[in-house]
Amino acid sequence: MKVFSVIGISKSGKTTTIENIIKELVKRNYSVGTVKEIHFHNFKMDMDGTNTDRHKKAGSSLIAARGANETNIMYQRKLNLNEILDFYSHDFVILEGVRGTWAPTIVTAHDVQGIEDRISETTFAFSGVISGNLSEYKGIPAINSLTEIEKLVDLIEEKVFERLPDMKDECCMKCGHTCKELSSLILKGEKSRTDCVLREQNVILKVNGKEITMVPFVQKILQNSVEAVAGELDGYSVNGNIELLIKR
Amino acid sequence: MKVFSVIGISKSGKTTTIENIIKELVKRNYSVGTVKEIHFHNFKMDMDGTNTDRHKKAGSSLIAARGANETNIMYQRKLNLNEILDFYSHDFVILEGVRGTWAPTIVTAHDVQGIEDRISETTFAFSGVISGNLSEYKGIPAINSLTEIEKLVDLIEEKVFERLPDMKDECCMKCGHTCKELSSLILKGEKSRTDCVLREQNVILKVNGKEITMVPFVQKILQNSVEAVAGELDGYSVNGNIELLIKR
Repeated sequence: MKVFSVIGISKSGKTTTIENIIKELVKRNYSVGTVKEIHFHNFKMDMDGTNTDRHKKAGSSLIAARGANETNIMYQRKLNLNEILDFYSHDFVILEGVRGTWAPTIVTAHDVQGIEDRISETTFAFSGVISGNLSEYKGIPAINSLTEIEKLVDLIEEKVFERLPDMKDECCMKCGHTCKELSSLILKGEKSRTDCVLREQNVILKVNGKEITMVPFVQKILQNSVEAVAGELDGYSVNGNIELLIKR
Repeated sequence: MKVFSVIGISKSGKTTTIENIIKELVKRNYSVGTVKEIHFHNFKMDMDGTNTDRHKKAGSSLIAARGANETNIMYQRKLNLNEILDFYSHDFVILEGVRGTWAPTIVTAHDVQGIEDRISETTFAFSGVISGNLSEYKGIPAINSLTEIEKLVDLIEEKVFERLPDMKDECCMKCGHTCKELSSLILKGEKSRTDCVLREQNVILKVNGKEITMVPFVQKILQNSVEAVAGELDGYSVNGNIELLIKR
């Protein structure tokens, strides 16, 4: 699953750029999911007085609304990005307005100042209003999604890589970098996605069908815990894989 | 996790009953989640013209909207009840308007005809408008959530049991019944939740391809060990199977 972000100030062409990218990706037979960051403190999806709003106000902390063609799961808290991405199994997931991640990023802007305000080491393209007047800035291409969508999506196909695990800096850095640094180096062509050491896991854990990424030392703790119990049992051998299924 | 349903015709007091139940359950320190079935064919949570609506119309098939205090996951299809319940890890989940399940059910109604239209073998109480005029019908109590909420929630605590797996009739019936039949028999006191054969927490361990038999308490130790580690990881859920592969 490949993940990238589109960020930019309001009215700089962010959602239009995303719409055009989605349409072109779908045209190329990719499945696409999206995540929208709402920068409005009191945001809520539901309207006052609906049944689900009444559930929430009475104290329900997770509310689902299911219709014939749509199901909404409403968490009453801000999930972190990894929690959100775990719901997805798409070819591409586009983040709108989600900042400060490792994800390769397209910046939309009105002008050079707008670019300067948001450019970072993970920026791989500019788009939106500015791309009508500019074809590159500081070596990064500016591509208009209205007139050059194929070129923009070609670049996305070339640059965007498989989701990084987004581990906290203090608990991994096994490749020598934070996830954001590694992302930047992959975009520059100096490293590759395979340099993420979590790619090859010796201990694979799935909960409810979903694989959970573990840094090496957590893998080791889990392995030791299982071996400590299993090692006492008749029939145990120190060689060979251990498979465990816990039905719940 | 205990699950029950409240069904009834529009304006019969369904949402009011649920609000009062949620408040009383929360007062008793239970965590509560809810699921609302929308019987309106063109239901969608989002409004026309929002950014997320534009994502959807461009072809995004799963859309998340994250605000400071709320995160919405919008599936562009109707999930089945088991898929929805897998998001929950609450003490109680209340289904509003979800019909035809194994879940113990409270029927709200205006009158006896409203009861007759919706009563089934899993009905364990009546409430809503009718409960102002009636204290029982066909041996099932009618309890007013406005004036007798403690009595109603006492009954919920007494009657509602741990979520059944809701297996398809053709692929289980290991207890001799469908999930709905077993539910009805539990409510009548003729069977217990432990009669569901899937209750037994099967922990299956293979070392080097060979299955190792464990007595129940060893299974439990192994499960606890794995859950103790896995439970600390992002992406862990208390529901669903745990699968572990240790490559050696």
